[in-house]
Amino acid sequence: MNAIDELTDCFARLPGIGKKSAGRLVNYILKADSSWVKTFARQLSELQDKIKPCSVCGCWTENDPCPVCSNPLRDNSLICVVEQPQDAAIIENAHEFNGVFHVLGGVIAPLEGIGPDQLRIKSLLGRVQGGSVKEVILATNPTVEGDTTAMYIQKVLSAVSDVKITRLASGLPVGGDLEYIDKLTLARSFRGRSSF
Amino acid sequence: MNAIDELTDCFARLPGIGKKSAGRLVNYILKADSSWVKTFARQLSELQDKIKPCSVCGCWTENDPCPVCSNPLRDNSLICVVEQPQDAAIIENAHEFNGVFHVLGGVIAPLEGIGPDQLRIKSLLGRVQGGSVKEVILATNPTVEGDTTAMYIQKVLSAVSDVKITRLASGLPVGGDLEYIDKLTLARSFRGRSSF
Repeated sequence: MNAIDELTDCFARLPGIGKKSAGRLVNYILKADSSWVKTFARQLSELQDKIKPCSVCGCWTENDPCPVCSNPLRDNSLICVVEQPQDAAIIENAHEFNGVFHVLGGVIAPLEGIGPDQLRIKSLLGRVQGGSVKEVILATNPTVEGDTTAMYIQKVLSAVSDVKITRLASGLPVGGDLEYIDKLTLARSFRGRSSF
Repeated sequence: MNAIDELTDCFARLPGIGKKSAGRLVNYILKADSSWVKTFARQLSELQDKIKPCSVCGCWTENDPCPVCSNPLRDNSLICVVEQPQDAAIIENAHEFNGVFHVLGGVIAPLEGIGPDQLRIKSLLGRVQGGSVKEVILATNPTVEGDTTAMYIQKVLSAVSDVKITRLASGLPVGGDLEYIDKLTLARSFRGRSSF
């Protein structure tokens, strides 16, 4: 097996990249500017050394605690609970939320052997029982697993604290078309309708 | 800009990978087995040092001349002319061809400023004029540029040598359906029909 096949196999192991696409990427790399390729390889090699989960919220960060948790201008009384670190990054990009995050690290999925103990739920309870938290926004995905996980957290949280617990609105996406909306989303948008 | 954004930009520079897919790949890398990531980075970094174009045919290779050109069992009197090194690899995988290759490095594309002089046509003429070549198979893609390039090579080759020059058959792909074949391909399959 030569260097081309070895690198092709590496690329093909990445999610969403098949054997053919991997081959195309390796051909691009072969012709690419060599100093850029060296930079790419160095950054790939150093990523895991530089980036660690924040000890407070669980988001990926270079410095612990992460920029959000260590920012005095963020509202520490408002915690947004997400499934994965990238979900927090997407919410950050929307510039709509000024509170802090809490990453679960997944959702409750019994079939895959992921129960509440595998998720960062205990540390969430700890943060809420600290006392300064006023609201917990459950921003897990609007899927069966995400909804189940949100319901579970709502239960255990309300048992130990009277903090306000909310869930992100589910309904029609902006710019969407009623004709192409699935029934479940339409049903939820009716249930969650707001008055003018 | 932190390490995540930097690596995301590197992945997003690869062909066919957008900003969102790049982000997903970086998230996969963050959680991946760290020894595998180091191997991946090392192979990426070393690829261009290890792999060079073969001085005879132009295919990518670790050793010069390449395994095909240096294999005494290959038929050196049969040269298959392809656009890119990956085309030669695809033909190799089909185990149908036992001759040797010649990589052009592209096709004649005046709008992109690529003329015959930018392609490895002179070295092809040199190989043919060496005398031992009996047939040149033009295996450029069945596109406007590929056809033009094949016609050009046919002209210059027949001017300096009486070597046999052939073109890969164009027609219905095996397993295809007449209903979904475009007109041009259908027309070519009629023109190139063979008797039972």
